[in-house]
Amino acid sequence: MNYDQIFDSAIDRLHSEGRYRVFIDILRNKGAYPNARCFHGHNGPKPITVWCSNDYLAMGQHPKVIEAMEGALHDVGAGSGGTRNIGGNTHYHVELEHELAELHGKEAALLFTSGYVSNDATLSTMAKLLPGCVIFSDALNHASMIAGIRNSGCPKRVFRHNDLVHLEELLAAEDPDTPKLIAFESVYSMDGDVAPIHAICDLAEKYNALTYIDEVHAVGMYGETGGGISQRDEAADRIDIIEGTLGKAFGVMGGYIAADKKIVDCIRSYAPGFIFTTSLSPALVAGVLAAVKHLKSSSEERDAQQHNAAMLKTKFAAAGLPVTISETHIVPLMVGDPVRAKKISDILLAEYGAYVQPINYPTVPRGTERLRFTPGPAHTEAMMDELTEALVEIWDRLDLELQKAA
Amino acid sequence: MNYDQIFDSAIDRLHSEGRYRVFIDILRNKGAYPNARCFHGHNGPKPITVWCSNDYLAMGQHPKVIEAMEGALHDVGAGSGGTRNIGGNTHYHVELEHELAELHGKEAALLFTSGYVSNDATLSTMAKLLPGCVIFSDALNHASMIAGIRNSGCPKRVFRHNDLVHLEELLAAEDPDTPKLIAFESVYSMDGDVAPIHAICDLAEKYNALTYIDEVHAVGMYGETGGGISQRDEAADRIDIIEGTLGKAFGVMGGYIAADKKIVDCIRSYAPGFIFTTSLSPALVAGVLAAVKHLKSSSEERDAQQHNAAMLKTKFAAAGLPVTISETHIVPLMVGDPVRAKKISDILLAEYGAYVQPINYPTVPRGTERLRFTPGPAHTEAMMDELTEALVEIWDRLDLELQKAA
Ligand SMILES: Cc1ncc(COP(=O)(O)O)c(C=O)c1O
Ligand SMILES: Cc1ncc(COP(=O)(O)O)c(C=O)c1O
Repeated sequence: MNYDQIFDSAIDRLHSEGRYRVFIDILRNKGAYPNARCFHGHNGPKPITVWCSNDYLAMGQHPKVIEAMEGALHDVGAGSGGTRNIGGNTHYHVELEHELAELHGKEAALLFTSGYVSNDATLSTMAKLLPGCVIFSDALNHASMIAGIRNSGCPKRVFRHNDLVHLEELLAAEDPDTPKLIAFESVYSMDGDVAPIHAICDLAEKYNALTYIDEVHAVGMYGETGGGISQRDEAADRIDIIEGTLGKAFGVMGGYIAADKKIVDCIRSYAPGFIFTTSLSPALVAGVLAAVKHLKSSSEERDAQQHNAAMLKTKFAAAGLPVTISETHIVPLMVGDPVRAKKISDILLAEYGAYVQPINYPTVPRGTERLRFTPGPAHTEAMMDELTEALVEIWDRLDLELQKAA
Repeated sequence: MNYDQIFDSAIDRLHSEGRYRVFIDILRNKGAYPNARCFHGHNGPKPITVWCSNDYLAMGQHPKVIEAMEGALHDVGAGSGGTRNIGGNTHYHVELEHELAELHGKEAALLFTSGYVSNDATLSTMAKLLPGCVIFSDALNHASMIAGIRNSGCPKRVFRHNDLVHLEELLAAEDPDTPKLIAFESVYSMDGDVAPIHAICDLAEKYNALTYIDEVHAVGMYGETGGGISQRDEAADRIDIIEGTLGKAFGVMGGYIAADKKIVDCIRSYAPGFIFTTSLSPALVAGVLAAVKHLKSSSEERDAQQHNAAMLKTKFAAAGLPVTISETHIVPLMVGDPVRAKKISDILLAEYGAYVQPINYPTVPRGTERLRFTPGPAHTEAMMDELTEALVEIWDRLDLELQKAA
């Protein structure tokens, strides 16, 4: 048993596949985002433009958010000091849960330390609550849902991505008396496509299944008050459990579910991932409260994001770059190879000061490695033109094929 | 299949066992902790004294911590905006990992969103790295370690709490060529007792096992610079992976491991719970950095905590209250019944403004329900006298037995 050798070879595998990850060390400039400072390479921090942040609406630098966080810091201090049950349940937590429940038109909501934990903790607890439950999972579900389903120990049926025929086939194959849960996302974050929520709910009703939707890449950004795709499509009342993050469009950190009171009470009472951990810092919660409230009444950020995402897609397509034209704010540029994707990303950062991280396995399937751009309300047209020109130059330099301009 | 009924009955079970949890809604008063405001019951917030916080050293209100968080908020904003790999790796994260590695005398460290996640993500990834690994787990290990071990899918051998003979028996029973990991805590937080680290490491060496220690209730509080019991006992170099939290003695939120570079690199590269989640908010990281640095050079908080914990134990014992005399800062008062523990806690809060949450199953085994006091540097002798008198009155009122004064 030589442990060192085993750890070495695990790392070597990554290097040999060209997918060893190097974290780029940056500091964003509050108030000037997407500008940031990059500490990568030599010669001290240099200015860059961030193109791959999930602070989608730049709420992480919104004055209301910063002010609320500062207020909480000064009122109650840094951390919560305990689990929700033992000393860590503050008035901020209670208020944010009310706010999020209302956002989704649900009776209750429950905070977790992250979106990952909300998926893992909630899904993995379903088996305890619903013995024998079978979980139907979209093939492209996020790692955190996969972890939760795996950790639940429930039998899992994977349906082809957004494929209703396949989902129905699998549902019909189970005993009608078996408890069932369909778990899927609204906006799939790597391709930017959207689930047919109503059609999935039709099937859920037909086969008496519960529904669980991950709206991590939609809350704050879709729907009249930011309630996500389920709000936009007027389907929220047909979903049993809506899950979201506080770390992307809401700009801070944390996760949650919204559902009926009794479901929330069950997860609150039975999920180890909720129970046995220090609760979110009150400062974070206060910041999210401000962000959620702001995005309830302001559509400016949402509109600007959609406008800018559409503009970037158009520019990429016009230049012949292999952009996927999705209906959402995600702008993926397909590369199909981890080494090449990293190369393009490296040149962009080193020579053009444009930061977009290459996305490789296991985040996306092998062979679909890509660059994923997330323009937001603060990205300007000039930035987009510069970026497009840079990419065309790099495509040319690396002898990659440009498509016939659309 | 009636889902509603199933959820209802899950909640009913808790009520009937007297362990349905009601979260007490509080706001601590920064700068005046352990004073806080309680929103429970009627008539608006009322002042209370917090006796059950895990902000053990009151670092959550330390001016250096608050100032550092404010600074980061203004410099880079609220959230990190991404995973560590995709846009969420800030200079603060890099710096704190260096600081924590140094604290434990290790080559590297890795941040997680919580202590829970650090245990779950690290332990559950061991199986992927060490196929066939058998994990030896102390019977009183925390829920997050149990979750990680369970989710790893590794065969698990539970040894009786701190029982070296039993641990050796189990180690000896395995094939010498089987990869092995011993997982245990340093300070067990519910009883306050301590693991025999050197003796466990002796066994690990004899049977060629890796060692994993949870120092969540020790970092910041023990050892010359706050490196925990493994530092105090000069055993850190014998432990392969040291895990800690940023949410208790360091006063903020988050978790970490410290270990050899290659182990950290493996977890960084293979653990879904690390990879697929928005990284800690830079403001939190900045606050922790300040706390760790402060506690490296100042022993004042540690000394005051030990002094006050010893004083409270002495006062409880002198009054005949059933206190467990541990060698650490934890002061447990055994009650042995969930309904009675809640009753005492309710009276303390409603009539005496003293907040201590009852601890019941599944946090502690059934039949060992207790009140758990965590006096810190900011609790005064007058507060302790008041608390002791209140408890004696309640003990009397509820016809509970007082022990012969020690
Ligand atoms: C679809 C999806 N669900 C959940 C998560 C996890 O959310 P969080 O970053 O808040 O942990 C992510 C990404 O991080 C995600 O992309
Ligand atoms: C022994 C132990 N390990 C880990 C944790 C989890 O740490 P965190 O609160 O940072 O999630 C806790 C308590 O919360 C604990 O008591």
